[in-house]
Amino acid sequence: MTCAVLCIGTELTRGELVNTNATWLASALTDLGFDVIENVVVDDEASRIAATLERLGRSVRVIVCTGGLGPTTDDLTTQAVASAIGVKTVRDEASLEAIRRRVEKAGRALTESLSSQADFPQGADILVNPVGTAPGFGVTVSGASAFFMPGVPREMQRMFEDQVVPRIRTLATRNAHQVRLRTYGLPESVVGERLAGVEESFPGVVIGYRAHFPEIEVKVLARAGSHEAARELCDRATTEVRARLSDVVYGDVDDTFAGIVGRVVRNKGLTLAIAESCTGGLVGHMITREPGASEFLLVDAVTYANSAKTRLLGIDEEVIRGHGAVSAEVAAAMAEGVRRVSEADVALSLTGIAGPGGGSAAKPIGTVFIAIATADGTTVTEKHFPGDRHQIQIAAAYAGLDLVRRACA
Amino acid sequence: MTCAVLCIGTELTRGELVNTNATWLASALTDLGFDVIENVVVDDEASRIAATLERLGRSVRVIVCTGGLGPTTDDLTTQAVASAIGVKTVRDEASLEAIRRRVEKAGRALTESLSSQADFPQGADILVNPVGTAPGFGVTVSGASAFFMPGVPREMQRMFEDQVVPRIRTLATRNAHQVRLRTYGLPESVVGERLAGVEESFPGVVIGYRAHFPEIEVKVLARAGSHEAARELCDRATTEVRARLSDVVYGDVDDTFAGIVGRVVRNKGLTLAIAESCTGGLVGHMITREPGASEFLLVDAVTYANSAKTRLLGIDEEVIRGHGAVSAEVAAAMAEGVRRVSEADVALSLTGIAGPGGGSAAKPIGTVFIAIATADGTTVTEKHFPGDRHQIQIAAAYAGLDLVRRACA
Repeated sequence: MTCAVLCIGTELTRGELVNTNATWLASALTDLGFDVIENVVVDDEASRIAATLERLGRSVRVIVCTGGLGPTTDDLTTQAVASAIGVKTVRDEASLEAIRRRVEKAGRALTESLSSQADFPQGADILVNPVGTAPGFGVTVSGASAFFMPGVPREMQRMFEDQVVPRIRTLATRNAHQVRLRTYGLPESVVGERLAGVEESFPGVVIGYRAHFPEIEVKVLARAGSHEAARELCDRATTEVRARLSDVVYGDVDDTFAGIVGRVVRNKGLTLAIAESCTGGLVGHMITREPGASEFLLVDAVTYANSAKTRLLGIDEEVIRGHGAVSAEVAAAMAEGVRRVSEADVALSLTGIAGPGGGSAAKPIGTVFIAIATADGTTVTEKHFPGDRHQIQIAAAYAGLDLVRRACA
Repeated sequence: MTCAVLCIGTELTRGELVNTNATWLASALTDLGFDVIENVVVDDEASRIAATLERLGRSVRVIVCTGGLGPTTDDLTTQAVASAIGVKTVRDEASLEAIRRRVEKAGRALTESLSSQADFPQGADILVNPVGTAPGFGVTVSGASAFFMPGVPREMQRMFEDQVVPRIRTLATRNAHQVRLRTYGLPESVVGERLAGVEESFPGVVIGYRAHFPEIEVKVLARAGSHEAARELCDRATTEVRARLSDVVYGDVDDTFAGIVGRVVRNKGLTLAIAESCTGGLVGHMITREPGASEFLLVDAVTYANSAKTRLLGIDEEVIRGHGAVSAEVAAAMAEGVRRVSEADVALSLTGIAGPGGGSAAKPIGTVFIAIATADGTTVTEKHFPGDRHQIQIAAAYAGLDLVRRACA
């Protein structure tokens, strides 16, 4: 069953506010089993509100709207709806009484502008507002069921869950099921190529992609005659997707890459130490953002200056002078040094050139040496990342965490 | 001059992602002087994309679109546009060459799916992408100028500023001017109370707020008969706003808090050392994300385990055992320890309980001790932050950086 979300307000069309209401409603409607085909924002202009409602009413079954129900002069939704469906507005006595009680309880007087919130298009289905003054309402526009709610997120969410959901639940067709997988290690185009033909092999399945640097999220959406059948189809297609991406899928939508790496370290009963230079604390931040990091992370020595590498990690000044701070030798010495001072089982180090300054022909911006030191010895990997300073830092941090994961696996 | 923003992607209609692109573009277009009357999101469905473009083209002069230009099967924008304007797609050799160079530089092969990003509707005005593989393009749809850009925010923003703005600037009626100020240190409601009456004192000025935890951005938008007059009005109102918020405004829209703190340290010719525990590297990451950090940051010792505090910073085990790792005494010892080993002028330390575990009645979750050590001695501040783990980490990092700024001022 198709539906649309309409948000009304010039503060939104001007970009003064991020439209989290649209995201919240679209997600809730999708979870209910609706197919949300359009989210629209229009400014506070009655003719545009009316025209948009008529247009949406012709193409979807349910329209969920927020905004423009308050007491001020820019709140035009009720009038616009009445004009769109060709009725007058009438004042509802029960709603007026509820507004009066609420206003008087707050020690204020009932003004005409507050009273006008009890006006509704004739014949509307009134939605009470237990947490604010402006009630909502439902009407039929161009054949679609349309529901109007205040724009305040707290009031809107409560009204949607308590009153709109019971009215639309039976219209939803839960014949879709989706699984979202998180991948790291391949660019989007290669992930897409790996999955070429999956949609054809599993009719009813649509594969979607979302890039969130440096990760690619893969979405497997299945539609079938029933929710049961959709879930079963989704499971089969997801098994195929996982098999084709087995080297890069690290978890599902609730996982983070650093969280998964941390879990691998902890589950092996190992401890971790880190020495960072170009990434400047980012690896430590990613690891410690997740709860439970204290169970395995001993230390992250961000030895930015050469003197810090010598003093904290005991690296021979001659090694730095001879090879440069960005070198395989210094990366190895950093990993070994932080492992020695912390007595950790596994140590990761990163040293590189994030830019915008500091590059050379021999070691251009984006050059990063990553070392892993364990009881079995030390290995150093040289990487070259494209992008700006922050992208190089993020790419290096992910590459370092990936090496930790492989070292502990 | 009217315009509309169109964002394409099923991840948006389903509410899997907050549509920050629409907000960014609407705000940028408003700043340019356009009247943004509608923001639309449609799913990855070619006929819907085409129908929406035709509809918008009939009612606005400029349409700015993002999304659906990538290499995967759900990227349908180019085909949909070609069908909307009744032309074929043709491959552009110069764009193909640029994609090839970019792909080969990253050590990958040019595949057909990547090459397809060089396909454009016949006659399109190509917008090069210096920071990604998918170029954008401009066409005329139902009489409106329509521009299509990738959905990746970084690529979209760069393409909009470098290439779309020069093409549409002359169409805008610039009778508005806006200044955006960044503040740290007061909640949104208090910032609003401080600015009560400013709009009344400067008719034509609208004050807007945007919370970006823990910062509040204040926008001063002025409209007048000409751009000159709007700028002059905006300047006068902004002077008043700055005066009322002088203790919390730290910079303008292009500044970051860590960047400003770093600039203060560097301009004084001082060096900085950090010792973090509960913030786990976040302070170092914030500082080193900005170019130039190597000029003043010597080290950030993320001493997560107690053993690391002892080994790297030389903190007496008895101090940790006697007062607990989260204590004023340990915070002071961490700051003094990292200052001693690094020989930095100023040292910052943070130790606290970010949760979700580890809290107690005496030291609940959110308790953070922050110390500053200089040649003049050591001061410790005890803070209690609300929120979840990540919010506590961010709030503590900001508070620590703010203390560094004040110590160096």
